[in-house]
Amino acid sequence: MNAADPGLGLPVDVPSTALFTDHYELTMLQAALKAGTAERRSVFEVFTRRLPEGRRYGVVAGTGRVLDAVENFRFDDAVLGFLRERRVVDEPTLKWLAGYRFSGDIWGYPEGEVYFPGSPVLRVEGSFAECVLLETVILSILNHDSAIAAAASRMSAAAGGRALIEMGARRTHELAAVAASRAAYVGGFDTTSDLAAGFRYDIPTVGTSAHAFTLLHDSERDAFTAQVDSLGRGTTLLVDTYDVAEAVRMAVDVAGPELGAVRIDSGDLLLVAHRVRQQLDELGATRTKIVVTSDLDEYAIASLAAAPVDAYGVGTQLVTGSGHPTCSMVYKLVARAKSADPKATLEPVAKKSLGAKSSRGGRKWAARRLDEYGVAEAEVIGTGPVPAELADRQLLVQLVKGGDVVAREPLDTVRERHKAARDLLPLSATQLSRGDVVIPTEYV
Amino acid sequence: MNAADPGLGLPVDVPSTALFTDHYELTMLQAALKAGTAERRSVFEVFTRRLPEGRRYGVVAGTGRVLDAVENFRFDDAVLGFLRERRVVDEPTLKWLAGYRFSGDIWGYPEGEVYFPGSPVLRVEGSFAECVLLETVILSILNHDSAIAAAASRMSAAAGGRALIEMGARRTHELAAVAASRAAYVGGFDTTSDLAAGFRYDIPTVGTSAHAFTLLHDSERDAFTAQVDSLGRGTTLLVDTYDVAEAVRMAVDVAGPELGAVRIDSGDLLLVAHRVRQQLDELGATRTKIVVTSDLDEYAIASLAAAPVDAYGVGTQLVTGSGHPTCSMVYKLVARAKSADPKATLEPVAKKSLGAKSSRGGRKWAARRLDEYGVAEAEVIGTGPVPAELADRQLLVQLVKGGDVVAREPLDTVRERHKAARDLLPLSATQLSRGDVVIPTEYV
Repeated sequence: MNAADPGLGLPVDVPSTALFTDHYELTMLQAALKAGTAERRSVFEVFTRRLPEGRRYGVVAGTGRVLDAVENFRFDDAVLGFLRERRVVDEPTLKWLAGYRFSGDIWGYPEGEVYFPGSPVLRVEGSFAECVLLETVILSILNHDSAIAAAASRMSAAAGGRALIEMGARRTHELAAVAASRAAYVGGFDTTSDLAAGFRYDIPTVGTSAHAFTLLHDSERDAFTAQVDSLGRGTTLLVDTYDVAEAVRMAVDVAGPELGAVRIDSGDLLLVAHRVRQQLDELGATRTKIVVTSDLDEYAIASLAAAPVDAYGVGTQLVTGSGHPTCSMVYKLVARAKSADPKATLEPVAKKSLGAKSSRGGRKWAARRLDEYGVAEAEVIGTGPVPAELADRQLLVQLVKGGDVVAREPLDTVRERHKAARDLLPLSATQLSRGDVVIPTEYV
Repeated sequence: MNAADPGLGLPVDVPSTALFTDHYELTMLQAALKAGTAERRSVFEVFTRRLPEGRRYGVVAGTGRVLDAVENFRFDDAVLGFLRERRVVDEPTLKWLAGYRFSGDIWGYPEGEVYFPGSPVLRVEGSFAECVLLETVILSILNHDSAIAAAASRMSAAAGGRALIEMGARRTHELAAVAASRAAYVGGFDTTSDLAAGFRYDIPTVGTSAHAFTLLHDSERDAFTAQVDSLGRGTTLLVDTYDVAEAVRMAVDVAGPELGAVRIDSGDLLLVAHRVRQQLDELGATRTKIVVTSDLDEYAIASLAAAPVDAYGVGTQLVTGSGHPTCSMVYKLVARAKSADPKATLEPVAKKSLGAKSSRGGRKWAARRLDEYGVAEAEVIGTGPVPAELADRQLLVQLVKGGDVVAREPLDTVRERHKAARDLLPLSATQLSRGDVVIPTEYV
């Protein structure tokens, strides 16, 4: 799972992430190097000022990808040559970049945790120079992946244990799709249609069949026969190319009652699923499953709770975050030393002007306070000493120590963590109606 | 610009795109190979049934990336090993995949063109087997890139000639961001903050400064001095960390009236821009420009038309398609031969069941009919002979011939084409109010 592994052959294995950087990070570096301020010890924090409207919790996802990105953040000759040719920065800065390797510390919410407005989901500590360069790539990953995971989590709560298939690759950028599959798995999806996600992240891949396959053949019966002959009776036949009732009859006729599943991809899914279930049962195919697809989101999934559906395939709305394709996470300098002396005291800093974009200075801890029943009741954030009663409820864990990644973990661990974290929230967390954030953020 | 160029060092240069494929494409291939139907000559078309609500036209973007993806669509040993280990397909299919190289033809709307519901923006012709495999990666690219280009086009119309800077890398997946920069450039943006986009697509990169840079220093004056000392008087100073009026005064004091620009990133931009312009003029900095950023979209840009703003920096709303992050383009089999004989007649096919998802069979041409004033008045689509009066208004051009890409072009050509195509639309095309599609689609 190491992103630097050269054998994987997939472009998601990044040779260098150093160009996933905004122009101004490098010019700020140049100016700070010249002014002698670049080496000031600094603390940057990632947080969001608000959740998307109506959402009750957020889901941290992408942390594992952030660690890969930090590890691969190097300026090789091709990158340096580009920066020189374009005159992005001067020669002393290029020389500094050539030796770049992040040597600081990163702490963060463990991947899969839930978060709330103000939660310091990632904290990056080191010199200003080494930390400021990571802003863009860290935000890209967390903003994208957390948006998808949040949608996935809502859908998995709505599905109530039924299987969820991620099918959105065709609806988003081809590599965003791979990250989206990963985030969907974290949020509770079971499988993906995306082979690249199976390859890169070992997520189970599954497939059904498309209308094109039926249309290729001279008749629906020919198509079903071809599919069952090659893929076996356990396959999933698509039954809505012509007439659903006729197709279901023919599907069982061709495959027998051992037919694995049928897929319905159009029409009134609630009504059609009931009819198809009844028909399958009458034909003796009582164990044949029903997979529904077609512009599903968490609301459509919930509305099918009473329908005899076994699995949901979700595409567009999943990979676009169900209305909220990004998380508005920001990366802010919250403390820095007043000199380059490594022992100089860190002083809190914060933007002060013009209202809504002001932020809280200081290096923060965070803890989730539980009530007497063990249910989360507040996200507590502070800059001073951690109160004793919250000592074992702290959320930030060390991810990178002195430049070395110290907290890699399997994706299944992350997925289980998310479920456990969501289960500790008040029950209203998984209500789909628009509501307030499910627990308040308290600053102490 | 060849994606296979191994020297670029950026993961957007894909070694193989063959895994950007849904599991079912391969199982359908296996079943068709066994059934003897895989080699039937087939025509697939990409189109959208509708535009996003309220949008008046769409923008084709990503075609150049599609050509790269098709060229690099090969199953190497690592990919085949994965498919074998996971038992995605059987050995005969793996053997077939090992020799895969697209050998058919691709026609499409030239990149940058506008499109409407039903427009056949891409047409892929070859055997069923070779065409069906390309579905996912083609849709990923076109659905993503066209969504961004459509938002960019609306924003560039709203900006009325003022400079537009793409700054959204941090709000979307790190590689989606590179494609988004490219699509934004096609849609009319001038520059990007994303160094990877500069590297990969030669888009001009620019940068300003962040609040972190000001906060790093002991005072705003120190920060401004450091920036001007290193980057020169032509730099852009960020003036809203503390007090805007004080910062503007200090900025001109430090840099002199030759100061390049100031950036305002928060507050009531309309009001603040007017105040800052007045203050700059009073300080003699009459040529210092004003750059505004902060959650801009096409409506916010339009609302600043009367403000003394010189450039807009746009992030979130651009890279998320301003409310519509994907285009709902589909890839449908519209015709196929009834046998594997290469001379067998193509027969139109189409899904028929359950209402809204039905489609029109047949290999299509498309032409844009102009009225007597040279303004577009209809998107005309047909399957029979092209009427003589539309012969020189045909939209589809050949992109791939016998497997070889025959229509690569510079991004600036694409960008100019988009502007020219938009200029031929009725004036109401660029109204921002919600409206109907600006010209009707006629089937003949």
